[in-house]
This record gives sequence, structure tokens and C-alpha cells, in this order.
Amino acid sequence: MNICTYSYEEYLHLVKSFHGSLAPGLIIGGFIVDLAMKNLPEGELFDAVCETPVCLPDAVQILTPCTIGNGWLSIVNFGKFAVTLYEKYSGKGVRVYLDTEKLNDWPEIRDWYLKKKKKTEQDSELLLAQIKKAGHKLLSMQKVQVEPEKVRRKKMGQVSICPVCGEAYPSKHGAKCLNCQGETPYSSVAPIK
Amino acid sequence: MNICTYSYEEYLHLVKSFHGSLAPGLIIGGFIVDLAMKNLPEGELFDAVCETPVCLPDAVQILTPCTIGNGWLSIVNFGKFAVTLYEKYSGKGVRVYLDTEKLNDWPEIRDWYLKKKKKTEQDSELLLAQIKKAGHKLLSMQKVQVEPEKVRRKKMGQVSICPVCGEAYPSKHGAKCLNCQGETPYSSVAPIK
Repeated sequence: MNICTYSYEEYLHLVKSFHGSLAPGLIIGGFIVDLAMKNLPEGELFDAVCETPVCLPDAVQILTPCTIGNGWLSIVNFGKFAVTLYEKYSGKGVRVYLDTEKLNDWPEIRDWYLKKKKKTEQDSELLLAQIKKAGHKLLSMQKVQVEPEKVRRKKMGQVSICPVCGEAYPSKHGAKCLNCQGETPYSSVAPIK
Repeated sequence: MNICTYSYEEYLHLVKSFHGSLAPGLIIGGFIVDLAMKNLPEGELFDAVCETPVCLPDAVQILTPCTIGNGWLSIVNFGKFAVTLYEKYSGKGVRVYLDTEKLNDWPEIRDWYLKKKKKTEQDSELLLAQIKKAGHKLLSMQKVQVEPEKVRRKKMGQVSICPVCGEAYPSKHGAKCLNCQGETPYSSVAPIK
């Protein structure tokens, strides 16, 4: 059993190194990306859509050339366990998702995924064993047509210098940068000399 | 000259392998993360804020334990070239940013960063050479107090099964999943048997 070009054990190793822990969702994510890669539409360049920010984007970043920083991976916050790989120009894609109808054969996965058990009640060894055994059997596929402009990040456009903080920012944000307009996550800022 | 625990050349190698190309922003990003790591406030567990989705998040993901999928990296879309590392519980952090006042000694970097030249007019060899030479000299630091709840992703909460598509989704999104409510990036979807 392989996950893309890695053995299952090699993939677990990569997950631990990149993500920090053997998150069940990221192991299922490996099977999701693997199945999508095996069913790519024709074409040469593929971008990815991940329908949740939780765990799954790391499977895409570990296994494909698509990352958040290079813009080939887009995240839409639907809270759904699904990845689409699509041809960059045509938008033709394959969507792979965790199929709730296929969960009944794997009660520990079902209870974890549908949050029927508290974390402390989960048997994580059994959960990982069921995930390894189930693999692709948890998943279904769809042929989708992606509207790339709905998911791709927007161009930054022209750059201005903020008159308040002196830093560069996208001119389209207005007369000041968003931080100085008050949308800041910082309650205090002090220079370090 | 090192970037965190890597030599400069090793870091470039990681950038190429993870990000796909030697993006100038990601090389500067390496210096940004390196400087932040060397000036961490006291504490054991650090989360990251990246103020642009372009390139920079990949420097954080390559050099720190923080990734998009594990939630320790948050991206705020201010279009600013800055990274903050902050102690997870206290919110005390260090923010490192590309300082426009320090760009005048490095004209090729300035013209690239402030978009004063078209991509075809840039001398990318000179740009990378100036970045390597400048390193930390492009950067300034601030002590910041982060409000973690403003940047951290929200908990998914209870899970429901969408009556339209049959997939699991966060109950808080309403009676149907967001995709079936019409916020979809897909213009057509067909099952693959």
C-alpha cells in the first residue's frame, strides 16, 4: 500500500515531521490526495482546492507541488473533508471526499469523524488501525468543473507606503494599511532597537 | 550565514523542493523567520502570524513547526511582508518585517518589492545576490502583544449531515452545507462510479 510515491510508513514519517503529530485526518488526507492523483484529468499543471483548513491542507502540501505560499493550493472554509485537483487552465478536476455512507463499516472512524465520541473516549490505536485498513474504501470521487477565479488568490496590485506605519501595503486597501485602519491582531506594538 | 539550523544553500534547496521555485520573497522570508526565532520572548510553545498569503507562509512552514493544517500558523491578509512569532498562551510576540526605510541601499530589492519594475525588467541574478548580501539588514523588529483569538481558526463545533449532498459539515453553517447553499467554486459536479 502506497501513498503517492511513498510507502505508508514513509508517509506517516513525513506527517510527523511536517505536521508535528499523526493526526487521523491527515492520514485519511494522504489517501484522499493519493486517490485524486491517480484520477487526474488530462493536462500538465494542477492546482488544488482543499475544503477545510484543518489538517487536510498539509496532506496536499506534503504530497503535491501545491502550497499555500505558492498559491497553487486554495483553501475554502466549508468544513468538508474533500480535496479537488484541477487542471489550472481548463478547470476540469477530480474531487475526492470522505463519504459518510461508507463509514458504517468503520465505527471508530465514524465516531471520530462525526464527533460522536469525546476525544478522551476515542481509542486512537483502533482509529489509526481502521484508517490504515480502510484506506481508499472511505472515499468517493466526483468529476467537477472548477471556476478558478473563485478560489485563486487575488493579485496584490500596486504598492503604497502607509503614512502611519511607513510599511508597504497594497494600494487597493485604501489610504492606510489594514493594520493601521484598525483590523489589527495586535493590542500593542513597540519597536526593538 | 545560517537560516535557522540550515546553511543558506540548504535553505535554498528546501525552498526549491517545497515551494517549486527560488522566489525572492521566500528567501527574504527565511531571514525574517530566522531573526524572529533568534528573538523569541520567553516561553515554550510558539504560534505564528503571517501578514500575507504570498510566499512568506512557506518560510514559516519550512522553518518552524507551524503549518496551515496544524493551525499554529495563521495568515492575515494585510499584504504586508511580516511574520510574528508569539507565545501561545501569553500572546507576547516578536514581529519582524521588511523595513522600507532600509531598502535604499539595495536598489534591485527596492524596485522588486515596491513593484517599480516590471518582472521582465528585473535582473533576478542581481536581486538574489542583493538579498543574500543584505540578509537581516533589510529587516526591523517590534515587540507585539497578539490577541490570539483574533487570528486563531475557530473550532468546527458540532457536525451535521447535509440533506442535499449527504456529506458531513459544521452544523453552525445552517440547514445545508455552504457548498449546497450556493457558495460553491464548482459549476458542475458529477459522480464517478
